[in-house]
Amino acid sequence: MEREEYLSLYRHSLAHIMAKAVIEIFGKDNVQYAIGPQIDDGCYYDFTLPRPVAEDDYKVIEDKMREIIKRREDWTRKEITRDEALGLFAGQKFKTELINDLPDDEIISIYYTGDDFVDLCRGPHVSNSQELMGAAFQIKNVSGAYWRGDEKRDQLQRIYLFAFPSKDELKEHLKWLKEAQERDHKKIGVQLDMFMFRDTAPGMAYWLPRGWTVYSELLKYSRELQAKHDYNEISAPLINNKKLWLVSGHWAHYVNNMFIVPGVTKGTDADDAISSDESAKNYSIEAEDTMAAKPMNCPNAMIEYKRTMHSYKELPIRYSEYDVLHRKEKSGQMNGLFRVQEFRQDDDHTFVTKEQIKDEIKDVIAIADEIYKTFGLTYRAEFSTRPEDFMGDIESWNQAEASLKEILDEKYGEGQYEVNEGDGAFYGPKIDLQIKDALGREWQCGTVQLDFQLPHNFELTYIDKDGSQKMPIVIHRAIFGSLERFIGIITEHFKGAYPFWLNPFQVAIVPIREEHNEYAKKVELALKAAGIRVEADYNDINMRDKIKRFKNMKDPYILVLGGEEAASEEVSVNVRGSNQQVRNVPLSKFIETCKKLNADRTLDLPSEF
Amino acid sequence: MEREEYLSLYRHSLAHIMAKAVIEIFGKDNVQYAIGPQIDDGCYYDFTLPRPVAEDDYKVIEDKMREIIKRREDWTRKEITRDEALGLFAGQKFKTELINDLPDDEIISIYYTGDDFVDLCRGPHVSNSQELMGAAFQIKNVSGAYWRGDEKRDQLQRIYLFAFPSKDELKEHLKWLKEAQERDHKKIGVQLDMFMFRDTAPGMAYWLPRGWTVYSELLKYSRELQAKHDYNEISAPLINNKKLWLVSGHWAHYVNNMFIVPGVTKGTDADDAISSDESAKNYSIEAEDTMAAKPMNCPNAMIEYKRTMHSYKELPIRYSEYDVLHRKEKSGQMNGLFRVQEFRQDDDHTFVTKEQIKDEIKDVIAIADEIYKTFGLTYRAEFSTRPEDFMGDIESWNQAEASLKEILDEKYGEGQYEVNEGDGAFYGPKIDLQIKDALGREWQCGTVQLDFQLPHNFELTYIDKDGSQKMPIVIHRAIFGSLERFIGIITEHFKGAYPFWLNPFQVAIVPIREEHNEYAKKVELALKAAGIRVEADYNDINMRDKIKRFKNMKDPYILVLGGEEAASEEVSVNVRGSNQQVRNVPLSKFIETCKKLNADRTLDLPSEF
Repeated sequence: MEREEYLSLYRHSLAHIMAKAVIEIFGKDNVQYAIGPQIDDGCYYDFTLPRPVAEDDYKVIEDKMREIIKRREDWTRKEITRDEALGLFAGQKFKTELINDLPDDEIISIYYTGDDFVDLCRGPHVSNSQELMGAAFQIKNVSGAYWRGDEKRDQLQRIYLFAFPSKDELKEHLKWLKEAQERDHKKIGVQLDMFMFRDTAPGMAYWLPRGWTVYSELLKYSRELQAKHDYNEISAPLINNKKLWLVSGHWAHYVNNMFIVPGVTKGTDADDAISSDESAKNYSIEAEDTMAAKPMNCPNAMIEYKRTMHSYKELPIRYSEYDVLHRKEKSGQMNGLFRVQEFRQDDDHTFVTKEQIKDEIKDVIAIADEIYKTFGLTYRAEFSTRPEDFMGDIESWNQAEASLKEILDEKYGEGQYEVNEGDGAFYGPKIDLQIKDALGREWQCGTVQLDFQLPHNFELTYIDKDGSQKMPIVIHRAIFGSLERFIGIITEHFKGAYPFWLNPFQVAIVPIREEHNEYAKKVELALKAAGIRVEADYNDINMRDKIKRFKNMKDPYILVLGGEEAASEEVSVNVRGSNQQVRNVPLSKFIETCKKLNADRTLDLPSEF
Repeated sequence: MEREEYLSLYRHSLAHIMAKAVIEIFGKDNVQYAIGPQIDDGCYYDFTLPRPVAEDDYKVIEDKMREIIKRREDWTRKEITRDEALGLFAGQKFKTELINDLPDDEIISIYYTGDDFVDLCRGPHVSNSQELMGAAFQIKNVSGAYWRGDEKRDQLQRIYLFAFPSKDELKEHLKWLKEAQERDHKKIGVQLDMFMFRDTAPGMAYWLPRGWTVYSELLKYSRELQAKHDYNEISAPLINNKKLWLVSGHWAHYVNNMFIVPGVTKGTDADDAISSDESAKNYSIEAEDTMAAKPMNCPNAMIEYKRTMHSYKELPIRYSEYDVLHRKEKSGQMNGLFRVQEFRQDDDHTFVTKEQIKDEIKDVIAIADEIYKTFGLTYRAEFSTRPEDFMGDIESWNQAEASLKEILDEKYGEGQYEVNEGDGAFYGPKIDLQIKDALGREWQCGTVQLDFQLPHNFELTYIDKDGSQKMPIVIHRAIFGSLERFIGIITEHFKGAYPFWLNPFQVAIVPIREEHNEYAKKVELALKAAGIRVEADYNDINMRDKIKRFKNMKDPYILVLGGEEAASEEVSVNVRGSNQQVRNVPLSKFIETCKKLNADRTLDLPSEF
């Protein structure tokens, strides 16, 4: 049996065991049991129970489950009619609803675990509970959930269970989970005083000085690299009139995710709306002056391209853009920096001829390569091709897809990337880049998408060699993707210990006693003059407390400076991640090291000088 | 007679002469005449006329005015009753309305010019038209205007007249005006392909690559300078919930100028609003999830300060911020980059103790000094003191004002700055800095304001030396003010010929013929490697056309490269503003010059190497 198949059988069966245990503990009449599917690391089951399940209950339930498993009961599958099913589950409202919702011709299968527990289930399951004897499981937690995810319906208790085929695997998973929790960027963001969230702006980060330094350094890196590849940066209005979104298609397809600034219909016009009484206003998105915050940069890039006639000689034209974007998210789906309502992308729209597609995308992949390598991240490519509802002519698609395939084959080798047939957007094929972090998790960050649609909507043209008007193709691309999300990812990847060039402060300065402040100040100024980000603590407090605080902030180097150091123009260096102090480092040599680290972003932090 | 008094008498009288002329030309029964006040460079008069006044009419009206003046008619003032006035102006609806609106006890004075023209007027006027014989006047233009500025009332034709005491002064003014028109940043913005406006986002600039370079260089300059002065940059959400604006006071005092994202009241909650049908939604600013785009950075800076306890040792804390702000403007008041609906400021909020006010503001003035000097702009300071409706205790005000006065006295000398008594904001005294441009126009850019109110609204504190909780004072400050507006100002000041460090491209490269492209490319790369912004034209077109295009774009240096230059590793340089070509400049020397210009922003463009 395949591992996946085995895991599924096994976890589904454990869900039944958990339901049986809960019923035995709380009493059959007191429990409504709903559904119990498998998930990534185990399963869960939803119930209504007479009281909330507390942490003290976890062991009771687990023990009961073990007891049930030890009964070595047989599992029996039966197929029954809808009426029989309704009779069997009488009093169980969720099961009754599920049965009534089944299509007429559906075979209703049920599973008995022993004689006294039955569940509606497609199966398959184990044939006897003894097969679960080696089971490694543990209740993870209990959370609230709505019946069928609908907040207007019953609120249920969802009991989550870790479930693995062996104790070692469970242990491994718990260790991984602990590691993941320690790396949680939301926690690190607070610890390192990087960013925060407040209910005054849900899903929008407040960037504190340290976090904003990281953000700014990322922007700087992206800008430097893209300037080398002849990108031209632009910036455009953040709030645009509805008429733009009507042309771009966002009003038809994306309006529910946009922050809308409706126009005012009472009063004669927009100006009147400014001066009139707020309470007398009637907001309506039907009003002509209705605007919306931009969720994407594309339409504005099209408008800037369109300001003038273009010759084929000018192409490719690359417009990079880092404007702030806004997208509405459901409150339950917002998650730290991973899913926000406000963010920036390293966005670019490049206007090319058909013939330029290949070279251009090759260049994008080269940029991606360099960026991911800088962070020590590996990645893999996914290629999504023409869907059924594609727009444009099939020949352009074929040509474009052939170009993309060639690039991918050359770069990664045939078969060394995933192909998602028919999974491209209706407006063009695309390549997605999935990076892998230190915990082995995958994140889709980079994307390169061809677009035959937007140039059409905005009626873009260029004059070709022969004097004819042609339509350019647009390439949408981002490498970091959302900068907010990328910072979340690397914060977890590095556990807050960012590479030297990216860290909020690069060097911390600790004078041993107040009398050493003078030398320390001299060192601080020398470092700052060399473009190094320094923080220092000249307060008259214990030097150990200062060192501890800077260590907690994960500053790469902490310089401890006393009389000896002052006399010899040297520094004593505490290197991040090491408990040794490197002594007698000439100040000039230390500064050279820091400058090298700022000049070459791929270097690891040296602990020798 | 004072010049101002004389100008007023003179221009008011010319307005009567213009009205008399228009009536004589169109016939008394066909003209309704409204009002004719003095303005900066002359006067205007509002009329309803049987047909639009065209440019061909200007001379006719001017000639008629001269003819009337030559009649040497006496001007007679009379005081009459309201009934007499209503009788006299029967049939003149605007005059009738004005008469009816006069308070009961007002003496109604009228002025006769000759026997046949009478106007309602307070005077004074000339006593005989011959006093206007030396008059230098000229119709400027005709524009539409609403009676009493109300777009719901009569639309009038407003005839503008330039009017000066002498022909030389009129000539001088017309010259100045032509110069101002040539410097119009809206025109230059298009010519230099810097920025543009579109009706998809009224009053919000689309920054094109060249303009965005200027913008980015300004930001970079501001950031560099402020980092040297220990400012910490932050960034915060652009769209914030109403509850923030309620605390900050913006909801009460500024709501009509904010772009509001009303919440949705139909449906159960915000998430439901995302998925439900758009047409079924009911937007209301009463909804709890109502948000608004921020018009100012202050409230978010307060929230970031408040995230943690602060010790007196940390103060002053300086939070600089360049986030995008949005403020609604009446459509008639938007004016290129001078008055926009979307902009960034070089904003900062500094949290200080009372004792730190003086040093801190001194530092702000030092930054302003450096910045304005870099652009060759002079400026003067205005000090605004406690108004009647001040908040806080009078002692704090006195102390703060004394500190500001000391700084101003030390810096500019007593009496060398303007004092606007009682003109401060209710929340604190302020210093405004007015810069003067190449046309002698003044612009208020810099501002330093103390604020006793916001720390109070947000309940900010710090722990003082003695362990007691105290409230910090907030200093708001900006030096550039709106970056958009500042770019508008310097674009007109420099007439689009920006200093080297700021210009979109710094060097343009023109190979003489295609065979020189190779050397040109080498020069291009060498310049780029030195951090210089270069544009080149390798197309096979006439080199004179290339030079002309780059000259039109006001690139500081245009390099012309041929075989001779290639052989000797030299460049021939066309310097902006000169018609001479400087030949035989060693490439290395040229690059050194460019690097120096980038390193020191105050340097003028040298034309020798």
